[in-house]
Amino acid sequence: MSRLDSFIRRLKAQRACLDLAARLVQGLDGAVLELGLGNGRTYDHLRELLPDRRIYVCERQVSPHPDCLPPANLLLLGDMRDTLLNARELLADQVALAHLDPGTGDLAASHALAVDLAPLIVPLLRPGGVLVSEPAVAWNGLSPMALPAGVLPGRYHLYRRVSSQSST
Amino acid sequence: MSRLDSFIRRLKAQRACLDLAARLVQGLDGAVLELGLGNGRTYDHLRELLPDRRIYVCERQVSPHPDCLPPANLLLLGDMRDTLLNARELLADQVALAHLDPGTGDLAASHALAVDLAPLIVPLLRPGGVLVSEPAVAWNGLSPMALPAGVLPGRYHLYRRVSSQSST
Repeated sequence: MSRLDSFIRRLKAQRACLDLAARLVQGLDGAVLELGLGNGRTYDHLRELLPDRRIYVCERQVSPHPDCLPPANLLLLGDMRDTLLNARELLADQVALAHLDPGTGDLAASHALAVDLAPLIVPLLRPGGVLVSEPAVAWNGLSPMALPAGVLPGRYHLYRRVSSQSST
Repeated sequence: MSRLDSFIRRLKAQRACLDLAARLVQGLDGAVLELGLGNGRTYDHLRELLPDRRIYVCERQVSPHPDCLPPANLLLLGDMRDTLLNARELLADQVALAHLDPGTGDLAASHALAVDLAPLIVPLLRPGGVLVSEPAVAWNGLSPMALPAGVLPGRYHLYRRVSSQSST
């Protein structure tokens, strides 16, 4: 399997997980949190899936495709380790769907980031809220969910926040 | 259709065209020419499809995934407008399969590059050789070919060099 093959497989898994997560939160009010904007591809997809939600976007350096620039009032600019901590006042228990995908290709860095961010992301999720993530995330109050058909275990990750008190 | 959807569609079209091109040149000796390395995804795919061919790679700044670094003796370093002209002595009528995909997302720049490069690429192709390209390419001696099943016209492009004398 070439890197082109595995990249296509990864993007299809990402899309299938986002599509499923959007269906899973249909009955759950709340914001969306895109953890990393990059070129704005998945932000654009989230925008299409959930046109009526506020989509907050964390990013250090905003340089997406010009069509994919989030509104300034929904941008959380800076290192996510700082911005997510500061966002707690605004967003604690307010997020129905969060998506984390640093997508740097550096597995060790992605894993380290997930370890740092897990305790910052979980308190923002509403009970019942869903986290879609490419690095696996382990934290009290996050329960792994079944993946969409066709996505093999470990390729992408879905979690639900199962309780409010155990993670704050 | 989101940018994530269209990106996946584009990568699948690219892969389908490369796979078909590799089959089309099965009976045609000759080198492969990757016009732009980027992160090395399609280089890796070409390497898998055509393990016994010499794959020459044009690139200005080589920074692929570490697994996808071409051998130094097959790298044509610099602006393709220069390197392809200089490569004529080495590669004229020697290339069975060439792949052009600047992939910058800047359509005007891609089109301008294709206009500049077409007269430099065609003389390197063997008669019967195949050019796979994302910007459309028009030049004497290049004949458009049918695309693989599922790839809509205009999404990606396949050409065959139909004569040797009309393009040099």
